[in-house]
Amino acid sequence: MQVQVISSVNEASSAKFHHKTAIIIDVLRATSTIITAIAAGALCVIPAETVMEARALQRPGDLLGGERFCRKIAGFDLGNSPDEYTEQVVAGKRIVLTTTNGTRAIHKSMRADHVLTASLLNAEACARVAAELRRDVVILCAGSHDDFAIEDGLCAGLVLDKLHSLSQVTVEMDDFGTAMLALYRNRSAQVKETIMNGMTGKKLMKMGMKKDIEACSAIDIYHEVPRLNGDQLTRS
Amino acid sequence: MQVQVISSVNEASSAKFHHKTAIIIDVLRATSTIITAIAAGALCVIPAETVMEARALQRPGDLLGGERFCRKIAGFDLGNSPDEYTEQVVAGKRIVLTTTNGTRAIHKSMRADHVLTASLLNAEACARVAAELRRDVVILCAGSHDDFAIEDGLCAGLVLDKLHSLSQVTVEMDDFGTAMLALYRNRSAQVKETIMNGMTGKKLMKMGMKKDIEACSAIDIYHEVPRLNGDQLTRS
Repeated sequence: MQVQVISSVNEASSAKFHHKTAIIIDVLRATSTIITAIAAGALCVIPAETVMEARALQRPGDLLGGERFCRKIAGFDLGNSPDEYTEQVVAGKRIVLTTTNGTRAIHKSMRADHVLTASLLNAEACARVAAELRRDVVILCAGSHDDFAIEDGLCAGLVLDKLHSLSQVTVEMDDFGTAMLALYRNRSAQVKETIMNGMTGKKLMKMGMKKDIEACSAIDIYHEVPRLNGDQLTRS
Repeated sequence: MQVQVISSVNEASSAKFHHKTAIIIDVLRATSTIITAIAAGALCVIPAETVMEARALQRPGDLLGGERFCRKIAGFDLGNSPDEYTEQVVAGKRIVLTTTNGTRAIHKSMRADHVLTASLLNAEACARVAAELRRDVVILCAGSHDDFAIEDGLCAGLVLDKLHSLSQVTVEMDDFGTAMLALYRNRSAQVKETIMNGMTGKKLMKMGMKKDIEACSAIDIYHEVPRLNGDQLTRS
């Protein structure tokens, strides 16, 4: 299995996803939130690129979620903190979600044969699903604005580490994948600290959102791997 | 000292270098060759972006060096293998050099206050010179064509490791710098093997250029840090 890792959404061109399984990573916080919502029983998450598109996609009973500048959008039901997406709030609901980079990354990958979402919360489960799909893989680190984000690189490295440990696959990585695997292996004992010291981590800490970093730093607590079906992310 | 690391020459915009010290890295093979040439007593290396420009810059007595598709250019005196740049051949000479990514990277950084060239061969010396220049630093990994190259990332991590060990500077890295430092620290015992398994390394191995990889994998064997003065790279 060939695995290519893309450092930020700006580096992604849709041609790169052709005939591949795409794994989208936005640890702080879009994919962590999506996975939490699906694990809490949400029917589906519908990614929207803009606030206007999100409002247009909302049907009666749907919840609107998302952020701009890390804050909840005015008039929306939910922000982008995994903790808000509890079973009480989301079970049985459709959620329309728009975030700065995460949902943009999902849209970029739509030409892939399969689109999976990963975060630290479900890395092992995602590696297993990707291995079963028997396609080459492109891991897209959403990043922060135009830049690489350390938390997404760490998660890409963790997914690669899990892929390497699966007996049924031989993994061939590109140079950036090799670098991300080494990053994860060097920092695996300090994942949360590394994230807190990253650019997005520092910003969230300043805004009093330390609990979001904690919620997003837990490793392999969910088995759910939200997967794109049409325009909806649902359980695999 | 703020240190930003750019993953490939395509990611570099000249605005990023304003008021900074630029450190250009192209381990395979441009900066390794430039450092070897200067250490062997070459008067200067003049980077040229194109073959035509290189020919135009040549004055009587100058040597023409460089590669296209990893091979020596027809009619040139020298290719891009450090081993060719011996004292017997280059001492007291000006060398006009054109390579695919390395010289392009040097040209991109020309708005910096200082432009230094680094490879594994002089990483510690380069970190010392950069620290003495008391500017924020941008490390530009030249990469291979449009992509990140593992050997340049390893070298960026090594330079960062050396900067961290200097008592007179406090280093603040961006997320990509943090990742490259972790990459180096994870792979520091297998530098040559990591380079051989990278994309450019594999290509050079296939072309029978293993000795170039060996020549470029030695760590801190030179104290010379070629530096841009006008359009020439000379001893610092």
